Amino acid sequence: MTLKIQPLTREAFAPFGDVIQTDGAENFLINEGSTIRFHDLANIETDPEGKVLVNIFRASPLDYPLAIRLVERHPKGSQAFVPLNNRPYLVLVAPKGESVRPEDIRVFMAKGHQGVNYHAGTWHHPVLALEEVSDFLVIDRGGAGNNCDEFYFEDPNLILAL
Amino acid sequence: MTLKIQPLTREAFAPFGDVIQTDGAENFLINEGSTIRFHDLANIETDPEGKVLVNIFRASPLDYPLAIRLVERHPKGSQAFVPLNNRPYLVLVAPKGESVRPEDIRVFMAKGHQGVNYHAGTWHHPVLALEEVSDFLVIDRGGAGNNCDEFYFEDPNLILAL
Repeated sequence: MTLKIQPLTREAFAPFGDVIQTDGAENFLINEGSTIRFHDLANIETDPEGKVLVNIFRASPLDYPLAIRLVERHPKGSQAFVPLNNRPYLVLVAPKGESVRPEDIRVFMAKGHQGVNYHAGTWHHPVLALEEVSDFLVIDRGGAGNNCDEFYFEDPNLILAL
Repeated sequence: MTLKIQPLTREAFAPFGDVIQTDGAENFLINEGSTIRFHDLANIETDPEGKVLVNIFRASPLDYPLAIRLVERHPKGSQAFVPLNNRPYLVLVAPKGESVRPEDIRVFMAKGHQGVNYHAGTWHHPVLALEEVSDFLVIDRGGAGNNCDEFYFEDPNLILAL
């Protein structure tokens, strides 16, 4: 089964999280008109014991075609990725739930000016850089307790091809 | 009085907040070794009634030499700026306290791969883009109550020159 790649839009990604982009966002002028504030672009979630962390992920590209073996989820908080090098990347997600059906996987091609924020519990593949080593600003939840579940697919032939 | 510009380093900026950069940061491998996580780069603060917001600021450059008229502070939370276009920018800050002495102002030249996080209460100038319109990812606090104080300088000749 070869996974289909679709463009990343707010509407298509809504069941999984937020697209962090200026297009279509609420905005207003600040700083005496010299700055546009595109406001509140992601729902940042943590449990009461958690804390919001800011990190940078430096991701090496994987080899494509790629056999998708697993997805992961963070039950206690959201996780946002914002590209810092303006390079496109892939986003592979599946709906919340105790297990994942391969036919429910969705793959999006994100442009270099688009970030994503996975809502708590959304299954997703680890970061999928393309072509070059790429940095992402990552906003997620830190604190005690398990915050990462993994789900391994039985089918060894879930293929992500460019 | 012409303000002096110094390079942005973690050490020099420590009294005001965090420098968000990979250099010198705690890091470890994740995703089976394909990704380096530079971990917990900023102390994100909100009051209990507040919420962490993610925004994009699109900042037009001001005209330099610039007469600095005011600084602002956010008493209820931190505010982080991370450049999305890899362009240098200026950071003007002053220590926490009820008022600001011009001689306590510090100005830093940030490189395009360096973000800053102003701790709650740190006085700072609104974003200072250079040369071109520039986007910044901004992580700050939303919620009820006043979270912005301004301090106006009496001296009309606090000059920031490039």
